[in-house]
This record gives sequence, C-alpha cells and structure tokens, in this order.
Amino acid sequence: MQNILIIGAGKSSTALINYLLSHAQEEQWNLTIAEKDIELAKSKIEGRSTAKAVSFDVFNAELLTSLVSSNDLIISMLPASLHIHVAKKCAELKKHFLTASYLTEEIKELNDQFESNGKLMIMEMGLDPGIDHMSAMKVLDDLRDKGYKLTGFETFTGGLVAEESVGDNPWKYKFTWNPRNVVLAGQGTCKFIQEGRYKYIPYQKLFRRTEAIYIPDHGYFEGYANRDSLAYLDVYNLRGIQTLYRGTLRGSGYCAAWDVFVQLGATDDTYKMENVSEMTHRQFINSFLSYNPNDSVELKLAHYLSLDLDNGIMFKLRWLGMFEEELVGLKKGTPAQILEHILKKKWTLNPDDKDMIVMWHKFNFIADGKPRQIESSMVTLGDDEVNTAMSKTVGLPLAIAAKLILQGKIDLSGVHVPIKKQIYEPVLDELTSAGLTFIEREVDPT
Amino acid sequence: MQNILIIGAGKSSTALINYLLSHAQEEQWNLTIAEKDIELAKSKIEGRSTAKAVSFDVFNAELLTSLVSSNDLIISMLPASLHIHVAKKCAELKKHFLTASYLTEEIKELNDQFESNGKLMIMEMGLDPGIDHMSAMKVLDDLRDKGYKLTGFETFTGGLVAEESVGDNPWKYKFTWNPRNVVLAGQGTCKFIQEGRYKYIPYQKLFRRTEAIYIPDHGYFEGYANRDSLAYLDVYNLRGIQTLYRGTLRGSGYCAAWDVFVQLGATDDTYKMENVSEMTHRQFINSFLSYNPNDSVELKLAHYLSLDLDNGIMFKLRWLGMFEEELVGLKKGTPAQILEHILKKKWTLNPDDKDMIVMWHKFNFIADGKPRQIESSMVTLGDDEVNTAMSKTVGLPLAIAAKLILQGKIDLSGVHVPIKKQIYEPVLDELTSAGLTFIEREVDPT
Repeated sequence: MQNILIIGAGKSSTALINYLLSHAQEEQWNLTIAEKDIELAKSKIEGRSTAKAVSFDVFNAELLTSLVSSNDLIISMLPASLHIHVAKKCAELKKHFLTASYLTEEIKELNDQFESNGKLMIMEMGLDPGIDHMSAMKVLDDLRDKGYKLTGFETFTGGLVAEESVGDNPWKYKFTWNPRNVVLAGQGTCKFIQEGRYKYIPYQKLFRRTEAIYIPDHGYFEGYANRDSLAYLDVYNLRGIQTLYRGTLRGSGYCAAWDVFVQLGATDDTYKMENVSEMTHRQFINSFLSYNPNDSVELKLAHYLSLDLDNGIMFKLRWLGMFEEELVGLKKGTPAQILEHILKKKWTLNPDDKDMIVMWHKFNFIADGKPRQIESSMVTLGDDEVNTAMSKTVGLPLAIAAKLILQGKIDLSGVHVPIKKQIYEPVLDELTSAGLTFIEREVDPT
Repeated sequence: MQNILIIGAGKSSTALINYLLSHAQEEQWNLTIAEKDIELAKSKIEGRSTAKAVSFDVFNAELLTSLVSSNDLIISMLPASLHIHVAKKCAELKKHFLTASYLTEEIKELNDQFESNGKLMIMEMGLDPGIDHMSAMKVLDDLRDKGYKLTGFETFTGGLVAEESVGDNPWKYKFTWNPRNVVLAGQGTCKFIQEGRYKYIPYQKLFRRTEAIYIPDHGYFEGYANRDSLAYLDVYNLRGIQTLYRGTLRGSGYCAAWDVFVQLGATDDTYKMENVSEMTHRQFINSFLSYNPNDSVELKLAHYLSLDLDNGIMFKLRWLGMFEEELVGLKKGTPAQILEHILKKKWTLNPDDKDMIVMWHKFNFIADGKPRQIESSMVTLGDDEVNTAMSKTVGLPLAIAAKLILQGKIDLSGVHVPIKKQIYEPVLDELTSAGLTFIEREVDPT
C-alpha cells in the first residue's frame, strides 16, 4: 500500500480527489484528505474505505509532521503562500510533493534536499501554470528536434463561461475562479518581446491593447497581456526568440468594458472608501466622477470616457446594475472589494451553469528557410457548478503526476516544473484520454 | 549668545542661511552649518565670524550628540526620512527643533517629551507645507471669528518658471525642486470632498481632471489634485465642510501634455527597463507603443492617445527631443528615472533664469445667509538660479520662526505645525515685509 495526503478539499480539489478515489483500489492507495473544515473533507470521500478525512491546521507543527511522515506523496491545494511550510516538512521527512502554484525562490532553495533524498517536487502542475507549460513544451521540443528555428511563441489561457451558459450576459463572463484575482488582474506593468523589441504596457492601457484570437469552432476571443512574459525566456529555454507573449483570454467585448472600471479607479485596492455602508452601486460609480448637480451619472461617465450613450459598453454596465440605487451591502472596503461585491451579484455561476477553459498557443518558426506558423488550442467544458472545467484542468494533471510518481514512472528528483519530456509526455497522453485534447493546425504566417 | 545649528547646506538652504547670517550679529547668534560636503558649507558662510562650518554625518551618533548639545535650536534640512534621528536627539537633550517637512506619526510621538522639556518643535514650516497653512489659517480663523459658516476651501501651490524666463519653452516649466518628485507626482489615488461628496481620482485620470485657476496679473493656470485632501479636515479643523481640495499648480497646457507620459507608463518607477545603455529618446517612447514596422513613432503615439499630429502636445514632446535618436545616457533605470534624465536636458534652470512660486486659496462661506467667496494669492520670483523663490519661501519661514523662538516670542511647547495664531501671525507679518505678500479679493461665488 502507498499513502497519499491531499491538503485542502475546496472547490478546486474536486476533480483531483475524485480521480485519486477512483484509482485507489486498483493502485493500492490509502488517501488522507486533510482540511480545516472536516465536514467538507468527509463529504468528498463519501465513506469510502480507501480514504479518510482529518482536521488540519498548517500552523500545527506536530500535526503536520505526523501527517507528512505517514504518507509517501503530498499534494497541497492550500493558498500559494502556505505551500512553503508543507514543502519544508516534505524535504525534512523525504516525501514527494506536488502543487499547482508558481515556483518561488524560497521553494527553489529546497532543490538540493529533494535531490539528495531522491524525491521529486513538481510545482506549477495545474492548468495555467501547468497544462500550458506541458502542451507548449511538447510542440517547442518537437520543432527544435526537427532543427527548426523558433521565432515566436504566444500563449493565452482563459477561464470563461461555456457558450451555452452565457444566456443574456453581454460580458460572456462569470467568476469561475478567485473573484478577487479577476478584479485585480493586470495591475503592475506587462512586459514582453515583439519582433526583438522589448515592449511595456501599463495597467491603464492594458485592456485597450488586446489581440483578437481565433479558436476553431468557437470564433474570436480577445487576449490581454500577462505580467512578465520575459521571465519565460528561461523557463522555455527561448533566449534569442523574437516574440514572446503570454496573456489571458476573454470573450470579445469584455476588455473595452472592463477598462471602464480601470479608468475610473474602481479596481484600486490601496485605500478604503468613505461611507461604504450607505453607498449604492450608483454612488460607487459617481464617487469617481466630477461633481455636477445637473448631469446624470450615466452622462458624466459617458462623457468622461468618451463613450456613446447607446454603446455596448454602457449596456454592459447597465446589465450589471452599476447605475442602480441599490445598496452595495458592505460595511467597508476598498474600491476593488466593493466592485467585486457588486459583480458577484451577477457573475456567480448558477447550479447548472458550465464553465469553459480555453487555451491557445501560437508557434512561429523558420523551416527550410520559410516562415511557418502552428496554432494549437484546447477548449474544455465543466459538467456543472461543482465539477467545473477549472477543477478538472487544475486537478487532473496533479492526480496523474501523483500516479506516475508512485508507479515509479518518472525518473527525476529535485524541484521541477513540468517542462521535461519525462513528465509532460505521459501526463499529456492521459489528459488526452480524459478528453483534454489540443487541436493543432498550421496557418499561413503572413 | 545663543547657538543655532543648521543641518544641510544644499540649494534649498540658501535663503535660510543668508537670513540667519544677516541677523547673527544683532541677535547675538553663533551659527553652525553642519554638512556632509564641508566645502559647500564653508562657501555659504564666506568666512564670517558669527558662523562656522562642520562636517556632518547623521549616522555618527557621537557627533550628532555633541553638535545638538552645544546648540539651543536645531534646523534640519536633511531628506525627510532622516529628521527623526535629529528630532529624537533634540528631545533627549532638550532643544528646539524646526523642519519644512511633513509631520509623521513617529515624530508626533515626541510631543510629550518636548512639552515636558518646555521646548518647541515646529514641522511643516516651509512653503507647502508651511506658508500655505499659515496664510490659510489666518483667513479661516478670521472668518470663523466673524461667525461665518465655512462651506469650501481650496488651496493650490506651484513651483514654476517666471514668465520672463519661459522663453520658447512650451511647457512653461523647468525643474526648480527635486526632479524625481516632479516625475512621480500624483502616483496613488487623490481624495477630496466636493459639495459634501467624497471624490476619488486615480493617477491615470489625474492630469485630465484639472481646474482653471485665475491669478490676478498673471492669468490662468491649471491645478491638479494632491494626494489626500481629506487628511486636512482635521489639520484645519474643517470637519463638516462641503468642499476641501488641495492641489498643485502648473502653467496652462502642461497637464494634458504630461498625461502623455502617464498614459504611456513612462513615469513608472517599479521596474528596470531592458537595454537602457543603448536606448535613445525615440526608443524609450517606442517601447511603450505597439510594434509596427511601417508606422513612425510619432504616428503610433498620436493614434494611441488620440492626438492630432499638429497638436500642441505633440509640439511639446518634439521640443523636449522625445523623438530624437539621441542616446538617453544612462546605464540602467526605471522608466521614471530615464524620463527624469531626458527631461533634465531641457528643464534645467539657466544661470539667469528666475523661478516663480504661485500660491492660491479659495474660501467659500455663508455670511448673513449669503454665499460669499474670497480668493487669496501670492506670487514670488527668484533672483537667479541660486537665490530661488523656492529657497526663499522654504527658508524664510524657518528662519523667522527660529528668531521668534530664540527671542522668546512664541509661548508654545511640544510638537506643532504652524496653524496656531502665536506662530502664523508674527511669521506672516515678517514675510510680508520681506515681500511675500498675499493679495486678497472677493469674487462672485456663482
């Protein structure tokens, strides 16, 4: 028997836990689900004999030691900042460790310990980061193996609402992921390389510098840049490439409308607003506009941001109820917190809503002296509000990696992200069988 | 004999030191000028017997103790963050202490010690903060004494170039103060109250939300909001007022042109740019624009920010040389550091240039049931590049306060800003004699 510890049984753990439960008997696994909310953990295992639920607190050192020491492989679904506590314990007690979060400098420092233990840590083993690395590296390695010269790589991912669940929502968007991160997305400066030139986009222009991206069978989406694409020069071993751009996908029309909130200052998270308990949606918007007793909030906004009153953007704002004299319903908050609260009223998934993950890569290269371009895309739908595409695409790569490690099929030790063939090949193969399939097509690069 | 210690002999200390030197014999003062650069200190006292220069390092505790203990009153012209070291020493050794910098929480905590010592600390005793507090409080106290109800208070200050020194400079601006602060000005969110409503302006809109301000004999200026006007509700005892707005003055046309740098992200100080040593002015601008091999940087910029090519804004940018293939001349830097370096090439005062300080207050109040409005303004010119208006308006209030304290004419102890009548009345009187005069006029409030 081998023992697996899963820490955290929240929404994004559903597919992970289900996969491990369904393979436990065959693989001879004992699962332990450690979770603050023990009832939540119990509900996930539904009384199966191969799994048990335990109450968990990452700051209880004794408990952490006893749980880690009695398992062979640990998967952490904790908030990103807490992984380090578990990772250090895994280093100390010589265990494998997996998460879907970004690799940090602090965690990288554990590499030597994991190596000398002969144990493997894989970070960034979810969707984005995760499936993006694996599916991109597969093509990049293949092109390099063929001796082609890479000139450009762009990659975009979006967590959206399935077309069939959009209904009358003109944003084609609901929260399928941490709403706070969606409201704060893009703050800071984006950096990338285009045709050999370093380019920088500040937050105040980010949602107006979008790219139109065509996904076969789904039509056009729009993409905006993510923070620091330059960091990926080294991750993907792409030094010398002419274009490198990493971004986020949204339905068409989303970004120009979201830019209204950016321009107003409504996504600011650095100060608390005054008199929040009495504030209505309309007053929230008005607090970012000039004082003028004679003009409506709608007219002031439209004039301020040069929008036509019959514009699709004004319609999107009206649809959200931004101009209603409805109480926000918070006692205090930053603009970002208040905006998130208002958006949740309309942007929360209904029980039968399906979410949708869209991932798209573009590879440019020179083959036999000629410029060529390959586009690769994956679209995955959730089943319902609980079994979301987000949960599947984050959880399955972790679960498959766990299985491969315990089967002794990955001959690596130390701290990794999934860019090595030994990891990405078998994981992508099984993801494909599970229906997470990339469609590749060659297009004219001009 | 009484002993005065002046710490820091840089550009902004000129008028302060000159005033104290010219009164030293009559008042029986010994002056000590403590400065890192001893030659600089020596050059300021020109061998007068009433003053001596000493080499100074704020982190040399022994030296600080010996200097503070042998003086009666200490004036610090150090960078704002260093005052606390001197202030604590003054508390310990029971000395008076003056600066032109903002009062901080840390310094406020010394109040009890200064009070029980019977010694006085006055912070914010320069121009802005300083003369603005004093000149505003004089009118505010007067209106309150008359029983009028205050409804609005706005105050703007600008450090500019005198009209006669503007020449062909379409910005009507040069650096007369810390250039870095000018480049970073306004970052964060501005807060104020207008007609009883809290209003917020984010950085990306700040330079487009200006107010036109008329100064008698000088015409129209434009004002943009300063950070947190709400903090002044308590400083000026104005809780319940309908409008409170604090801002910065610039020549007309400045703000819309400066907004180009804001929109581009060229004032960002949070990351280092790539390849700075080879970067030209033109490439600096281009790095914030989309890649397009067929369009000029000028056209891309104009299109991006919806400017006409023959617009005054494009002319201002050309005048600065922003489109030239001239090397920036730095090895590395943030966008803000690079922009500052480029701007200094054109925005540095010539030896015979005069700077100009403009301050303007607007007071709205109800008298006998009727709304009334008083505007008060001060315009002061520098003599030349060394004896600047900035140096006079920062240094004279400090120097006059020092004299009044040593003459025993201010009956206060503890930590203060100059909003009490005992301080502002005699200081304003002497500033008026020195030519720093406010012109008051009543205007129709509609």
